[in-house]
Amino acid sequence: MEFELIDRYFTPLSHGLATDELGIGDDGAIMTPPAGHQLVVVTDTSIAGVHFPHGTSAFDMAWKALAVNLSDLAAMGAHPAFYSLALTLERYDQAWLQDFASGLAALAQQVSHQTLNGFLPLIGGDTTRGLLSITITAHGWVKTGSTLRRNGAKPGDVIFVSGHLGEGGLGLQMALAGQQTESLATAAALAKLNRPEPRVALGLALVDLATSAIDISDGLLADLNHILQASSVGAELNMLSMPITDSVKAWSAADPIKPLVAGDDYELCFTLDPANIQRAMQISAQLGLKLSRIGVVSDSLGIRIDGKCLTQFTETSGNGFSHFASQ
Amino acid sequence: MEFELIDRYFTPLSHGLATDELGIGDDGAIMTPPAGHQLVVVTDTSIAGVHFPHGTSAFDMAWKALAVNLSDLAAMGAHPAFYSLALTLERYDQAWLQDFASGLAALAQQVSHQTLNGFLPLIGGDTTRGLLSITITAHGWVKTGSTLRRNGAKPGDVIFVSGHLGEGGLGLQMALAGQQTESLATAAALAKLNRPEPRVALGLALVDLATSAIDISDGLLADLNHILQASSVGAELNMLSMPITDSVKAWSAADPIKPLVAGDDYELCFTLDPANIQRAMQISAQLGLKLSRIGVVSDSLGIRIDGKCLTQFTETSGNGFSHFASQ
Repeated sequence: MEFELIDRYFTPLSHGLATDELGIGDDGAIMTPPAGHQLVVVTDTSIAGVHFPHGTSAFDMAWKALAVNLSDLAAMGAHPAFYSLALTLERYDQAWLQDFASGLAALAQQVSHQTLNGFLPLIGGDTTRGLLSITITAHGWVKTGSTLRRNGAKPGDVIFVSGHLGEGGLGLQMALAGQQTESLATAAALAKLNRPEPRVALGLALVDLATSAIDISDGLLADLNHILQASSVGAELNMLSMPITDSVKAWSAADPIKPLVAGDDYELCFTLDPANIQRAMQISAQLGLKLSRIGVVSDSLGIRIDGKCLTQFTETSGNGFSHFASQ
Repeated sequence: MEFELIDRYFTPLSHGLATDELGIGDDGAIMTPPAGHQLVVVTDTSIAGVHFPHGTSAFDMAWKALAVNLSDLAAMGAHPAFYSLALTLERYDQAWLQDFASGLAALAQQVSHQTLNGFLPLIGGDTTRGLLSITITAHGWVKTGSTLRRNGAKPGDVIFVSGHLGEGGLGLQMALAGQQTESLATAAALAKLNRPEPRVALGLALVDLATSAIDISDGLLADLNHILQASSVGAELNMLSMPITDSVKAWSAADPIKPLVAGDDYELCFTLDPANIQRAMQISAQLGLKLSRIGVVSDSLGIRIDGKCLTQFTETSGNGFSHFASQ
């Protein structure tokens, strides 16, 4: 079964390599590093029922499994280069596999302009029988020494976030509740959950500009905290500056911090020297992507929102910060 | 949980990178390609109860999950470089994780002499909750254009195999039957099953020497057939030349072809111009590794053993070729 499955659905995603390169079909793939570049490697596993609500389509599962990896590459400022797929399947379902392969192809096509050679090939992997699970290892190229990292934020830097916050979280709640898309706004939230758009072009534009960057998969506050800890700094945030749509505001009316701790947004959070704010605004206009200035890096450790300290960090709950200090 | 788990058990396996490289701790890892080299990427998923008999120790599972990937790198003639790990766990068991990390460390140490910089780091990955499953993506370096491939076998080439055949299969049968190690010979078969030694040094020695190579994970005949199909040639094999130990002979007395179709051996099968036989024998002596000349490449398609054709190829059974032609 395995060879037919791979030939039929996945080998087509591997085409277009250079003559001295090799995709699917030998013991391994062979890829040529561009001169003066380093390799960036990211890996994410997605398990049905854990990382996808039951009922998620094969197309959307494939899209998102690849998107979360490309989002990590984006946060490093890397050109996506190629990816491998380890797929564990309960059974051999042709319609499902076709839909799944289409999801990979659609996202690969969408980011093809951000690659160095115009396409993003699947270069190999493994298929096994078991509970549905998708592990993608994505590879990117960065000019040697030019990677975006988490550890360069400096006091006085401004803090930006792309897109809107909390839409993935709202979409997840709707999906878990089995809700239909009642309006354009809720449809948008579901789309953000199911087909997040990795901010690859933004990450590339931020190389040599941002002092630090991270992608928001665990919620803004938890992921910003990774930057702050790696950089040994703190942050002062402004709640009114947070990019939150009306539908997310309505969803989070009882707990306004919810959009800042909900995961699944796959936006980028980054820091900049204030002298570069104008360049960031130009990038925003060029990419047609909203960039919001949400606060400033401080030399006082911790995160403060409108002057109030966040104290309780409950990592195991899946939410980053769950409460303000009582004062 | 995840951060503590990673810091405690896996970050130590990531140490020793160059200053412009990055292992565990950011959105992705950053690795520097050596000048004039291409990247080889291999991926294998191992699922408990499918790829490991129940009762396999965490140490052995880790060793084997890494070994099967290094075996694929060996078959390409690559220097192992680094690997990522996607680990799905049912629960957080410290003793299990410690044993698992020790298995990775032990094999990484064993192949450290075949790397370009003296060690094989774990560079990242993902941990998730679910049924136990291990996906490793291993990366290697080859000099540009010097990779071992499957497609270069030519009529008249001699066919070699390393080590012994069928020991993995015998070990698996013993493990499934819950047999104790009754003798040194059966202990050796269980060791081959649980801690296969990837033939990395052999693969490196065969670069620019062998005309084709593959690792034997699905049984000699099935994997040799991949070489033959990729090279559009056939093979004439000699049963008496097959490297089979007395204990495996006893195990396969009723079905002498069993050692040639049993999987889990992780030896290399390769083809050579006959002018290079002497060099192969020197490599065998240098590595202290048995190399057996088992046949010759023919321009007549198919596999013949002692002149008889193999006709029935039953891929789904897990065995490669299961029967001789009735003639």
